[in-house]
Amino acid sequence: MVKAGVINVTSYMGGELVRLLATHPEVQLTSVTGRSAAGKPLGESFPHLARMNLCVTEQLDDSVEVVFSALPHAASAEQCLPFIRRGVPVIDLSADFRLKDASEYSDWYGVEHPAPESLACSVYGLTELHRDEIATAKLVGNPGCYPTGAVLALAPAMAAGLIDPDIIVDGKSGVSGAGRGLGLAYHFGEANENVSAYALDGHRHLPEMTQELARLAEGPRPRITFIPHLIPMNRGILSTCYATLRPDALAGDAQARLRRVREIYEDFYRDEPFVSVSLTPPQTKQTQGVNTCLVYPTVDSRTGRLVAVSAIDNLVKGGSGQAVQNMNLMLGFPETMGLSAAAMYP
Amino acid sequence: MVKAGVINVTSYMGGELVRLLATHPEVQLTSVTGRSAAGKPLGESFPHLARMNLCVTEQLDDSVEVVFSALPHAASAEQCLPFIRRGVPVIDLSADFRLKDASEYSDWYGVEHPAPESLACSVYGLTELHRDEIATAKLVGNPGCYPTGAVLALAPAMAAGLIDPDIIVDGKSGVSGAGRGLGLAYHFGEANENVSAYALDGHRHLPEMTQELARLAEGPRPRITFIPHLIPMNRGILSTCYATLRPDALAGDAQARLRRVREIYEDFYRDEPFVSVSLTPPQTKQTQGVNTCLVYPTVDSRTGRLVAVSAIDNLVKGGSGQAVQNMNLMLGFPETMGLSAAAMYP
Amino acid sequence: MVKAGVINVTSYMGGELVRLLATHPEVQLTSVTGRSAAGKPLGESFPHLARMNLCVTEQLDDSVEVVFSALPHAASAEQCLPFIRRGVPVIDLSADFRLKDASEYSDWYGVEHPAPESLACSVYGLTELHRDEIATAKLVGNPGCYPTGAVLALAPAMAAGLIDPDIIVDGKSGVSGAGRGLGLAYHFGEANENVSAYALDGHRHLPEMTQELARLAEGPRPRITFIPHLIPMNRGILSTCYATLRPDALAGDAQARLRRVREIYEDFYRDEPFVSVSLTPPQTKQTQGVNTCLVYPTVDSRTGRLVAVSAIDNLVKGGSGQAVQNMNLMLGFPETMGLSAAAMYP
Amino acid sequence: MVKAGVINVTSYMGGELVRLLATHPEVQLTSVTGRSAAGKPLGESFPHLARMNLCVTEQLDDSVEVVFSALPHAASAEQCLPFIRRGVPVIDLSADFRLKDASEYSDWYGVEHPAPESLACSVYGLTELHRDEIATAKLVGNPGCYPTGAVLALAPAMAAGLIDPDIIVDGKSGVSGAGRGLGLAYHFGEANENVSAYALDGHRHLPEMTQELARLAEGPRPRITFIPHLIPMNRGILSTCYATLRPDALAGDAQARLRRVREIYEDFYRDEPFVSVSLTPPQTKQTQGVNTCLVYPTVDSRTGRLVAVSAIDNLVKGGSGQAVQNMNLMLGFPETMGLSAAAMYP
Repeated sequence: MVKAGVINVTSYMGGELVRLLATHPEVQLTSVTGRSAAGKPLGESFPHLARMNLCVTEQLDDSVEVVFSALPHAASAEQCLPFIRRGVPVIDLSADFRLKDASEYSDWYGVEHPAPESLACSVYGLTELHRDEIATAKLVGNPGCYPTGAVLALAPAMAAGLIDPDIIVDGKSGVSGAGRGLGLAYHFGEANENVSAYALDGHRHLPEMTQELARLAEGPRPRITFIPHLIPMNRGILSTCYATLRPDALAGDAQARLRRVREIYEDFYRDEPFVSVSLTPPQTKQTQGVNTCLVYPTVDSRTGRLVAVSAIDNLVKGGSGQAVQNMNLMLGFPETMGLSAAAMYP
Repeated sequence: MVKAGVINVTSYMGGELVRLLATHPEVQLTSVTGRSAAGKPLGESFPHLARMNLCVTEQLDDSVEVVFSALPHAASAEQCLPFIRRGVPVIDLSADFRLKDASEYSDWYGVEHPAPESLACSVYGLTELHRDEIATAKLVGNPGCYPTGAVLALAPAMAAGLIDPDIIVDGKSGVSGAGRGLGLAYHFGEANENVSAYALDGHRHLPEMTQELARLAEGPRPRITFIPHLIPMNRGILSTCYATLRPDALAGDAQARLRRVREIYEDFYRDEPFVSVSLTPPQTKQTQGVNTCLVYPTVDSRTGRLVAVSAIDNLVKGGSGQAVQNMNLMLGFPETMGLSAAAMYP
Repeated sequence: MVKAGVINVTSYMGGELVRLLATHPEVQLTSVTGRSAAGKPLGESFPHLARMNLCVTEQLDDSVEVVFSALPHAASAEQCLPFIRRGVPVIDLSADFRLKDASEYSDWYGVEHPAPESLACSVYGLTELHRDEIATAKLVGNPGCYPTGAVLALAPAMAAGLIDPDIIVDGKSGVSGAGRGLGLAYHFGEANENVSAYALDGHRHLPEMTQELARLAEGPRPRITFIPHLIPMNRGILSTCYATLRPDALAGDAQARLRRVREIYEDFYRDEPFVSVSLTPPQTKQTQGVNTCLVYPTVDSRTGRLVAVSAIDNLVKGGSGQAVQNMNLMLGFPETMGLSAAAMYP
Repeated sequence: MVKAGVINVTSYMGGELVRLLATHPEVQLTSVTGRSAAGKPLGESFPHLARMNLCVTEQLDDSVEVVFSALPHAASAEQCLPFIRRGVPVIDLSADFRLKDASEYSDWYGVEHPAPESLACSVYGLTELHRDEIATAKLVGNPGCYPTGAVLALAPAMAAGLIDPDIIVDGKSGVSGAGRGLGLAYHFGEANENVSAYALDGHRHLPEMTQELARLAEGPRPRITFIPHLIPMNRGILSTCYATLRPDALAGDAQARLRRVREIYEDFYRDEPFVSVSLTPPQTKQTQGVNTCLVYPTVDSRTGRLVAVSAIDNLVKGGSGQAVQNMNLMLGFPETMGLSAAAMYP
């Protein structure tokens, strides 16, 4: 069994890593850290994980053979660096190793990157787009939850040259996406029975989306407007993506064009274990607790626009499940190992 | 006191009309109808309205002096016609008197319009855009809930010639928008902890949006892609609207342009009692139970797009409250009469 | 218009007082306080109340003619004292003026009572049990939300000598009952999709229940076990109360006994404007936003136990609405003034 | 691999059986039935289960080696009988094989028992109380969801003779407990933001509770008042149970008595893989998706009452997970096989 460690286990992402690793047949979680909970059993922070018999410590045990970090940005890179330097495989769930451009990082995150030299060797951990690199990487920057949904919804169309660079991403996330830290917006009385847009000045997940979609096609860089929304539910992200189809991209009448779009999507994801092109518009509930991304492309025949909708569980495919998928590749395990459960419904 | 009647009182829209009319100082609700509940006290369908001491009947009493209909389309026009013919003021909450073009109606609703001759004298009941006509009308087609939010979000920009005709409306509605009729999608276990897009082939509220926005400006007809979403909450619609700013529409740098956009919106709604240009992105909860529409325009400076967000309560400004506002005008009462309560929060 | 002031307006109870007073025909809210929000418009704390044009101050204006306090215990008495001493009518929504026994107060609240001398002249503000005293009082201790539901559910049985003193009160409250202050238990991800019992060692609302039920009958003091529960909804308290019927209390067969119990309840509440004996088991939603208490007594014929269920909105009849009802009595207005709206449903 | 079949797979219980069996290492689900969905892929009823590649049929395939039935009562026994007669192991999730007394069955369910002769050889499937019988049984009546929570909460106290036979069970269930069939009470707009008691005349789960608790102790039969409540969440049952401690049952002061009660509970459940005596009051969320029952006993020192709270997931320990646990015993597999995942949190 490979020994795994989780930094900042007391977050929702950290707890979800524990849940997923608990049944992984080749990995044993041996060390978990957390700031305020250090020195206490994990069961004090998360009673439902009490039987794991783990004690939260301040630092990861040196013996771990793979590291997951669920710390916020900047703090995460700092705690990962010793392991990175020793060549221990690291999957970082923060934003620290996602953007390839350190200056873009400092623009969006307001701090200098703690380890710009490591960006060259880090890989963006959206497995479907970077599978081969991840398999040989020692450092993976696990994607943000919104970019996961949006990029998977748009990648086939982008790669096939179907769409103009003008893109709208309307993201709808469950409240767990904001983490376990307290804040008035996440207070039950405020978030429940409410929906609102936020980060209208620009959300930090935007540059990731642009970076990854730009990679898929030549031509002008995508011009994305991304507006995230808070939805009164625990888990799930629905990404509704809008783009104009290139006039010459598709031949035939409306039905033929729609059929062709679906073919392109189905071809793109044909061998993917965790992405399905769904027959009906996807619901976030259909991905609850699992590493699935459901993608549904359609064409608004009145306006000639592509509408592509995707559904994920923000804590699984949008975080911890994606991280385990990446770990499997990095350690040479089958990609789906430990990730084959069915969704919890309802 | 003016005697009012409500057709199909046992729907959520009907119940909401009862709630709002119950405290109206100049109107008395004297007659209410409902199919399956006919012959029974209203309190059997809605125990919280038992003290109204109303009995549900099959037909409205002839003595009513103003009629609200909360029936579905086609059925509604049929039941309203006798009152329309007698000149009794009618506010119809169905889709029957919204579209000016009877053939567009039959395209979208799949039935011939039951009274095409009445369309000429009916007025689209979005008060902010049709105040004078409503004041003299005998027949008002109360707007759909989604068009209310979308049109109010976009009208100032449209009227000022700020935007291109390519428009995206991403609508997010609480489940009460689907009514009180049973359906698997509205079963608690399905709708709760879930978000999904629906009507991706085209929603019946689209032609209303197009009709009303087209009226506001010369030039090409708006090309709207409208995707509605079901949100796990009882009430509220958030409309997130995206449009490209015309290159020559605004001068100055990003800040100047944003300031100008806000000025245009504030001017447009300056004297409106029920529409406010909010200082922060609006939340549907801030409109819970009241006839308010909160509008928040901003500019995505990276892409030059207008993003306009609006929040309403789908059962109030998106239905019954709007209907009472229209009734006030039609009967010569102050427009805000009976509609001045503060939102229920949380 | 009588000038009213609200202390700690930025709480949920404070905001609810603003909502209710906003449409009161004889009272004008002229002064509101709040600690962190002092010096700012009320609309910054509660955007939905922006149009009230109130500025939050540190201290109430001296000109107010009636005072509501929504501060926590101890702090509340301190801020109310100057007004109490000047004879300004005060309705305190904290626990400071509910218990008649200052030593019981210090036992449960862990502090000495800040003004024990004032307890003699304060009245427990459950209008249905203390109407006459409240009408002449200058100081009312507004009841806790749980005691309101439990005492109204049990009072008729207690007063009629129907039940033994052994009583179980199982309380189920929406999360707004915990206030607007942040806490992990009220974080959306924790409270949503969850139900739990709390305060199993004894909840501070227990002595109130005992005090008020004991008043209603001679004989042994009630021995109440009260367990509150947190329910994933914003508003509402359902109180399920269990007590053994005295063997000799009721004659006849099961049906006759049930009929007699209902008669006793209906007689008890016959003239009450805000308490109804409901025909079907009440739902909290039926009281959403209004000052109603629905009570439903029944008899478990297998065991001879009384089961009495009540539903209230914890912020209205369980707080701010009750306070306005008391104010109406204290100021000589009709008891229902400003409180006649219908429930918001759904 | 043992071939398993699920009757009425399109219910929530049926879907949950599919989810749990999908990862069971020794069982393969080969046949599933459903009435309206017969002839269609399972993915049409439950898109999230599409990859199981199962087709819904009208009748179970004869080759199945173990049968689960998720049909309603009466219909279930009928469909199970052929398998029972052939000696195929059957776990029935309906009420048909729970009550030992056929006349009690007909009293509560209003129909004659379809196979009274089979009651003698059926075993009540609460593993913790009937482990040895289940291991040798061919027919198990899987417990109701409420009895599972209530009996596990009270069994240690009952078996140790701690409590009087007068017992109150206040049950609080998520809405999935009512199944996937439509009904106004489960319509989102009605169930959301609402809590209510139901079945105040007696719920069908009451005789099960009585039967199982009566078995644990000599003396008078328990006199249980059981009131279930509908909670606005998908999953989970919290059972709050109240009983009077026998005066002579425990020695010492309040602390000593509480300590002794906890010891008795811990001893009772010491070797149980799926029942834990929790250190803090349990939350249903801590059992989301897993076969755990958390039990928390305490003593109300003011009144000398035992309060025992338990939390389960109504679809897992309260149904499908319990069924798999029983199957494991019946087929000779380790009891926890396929049931070792951690709870989904949040």
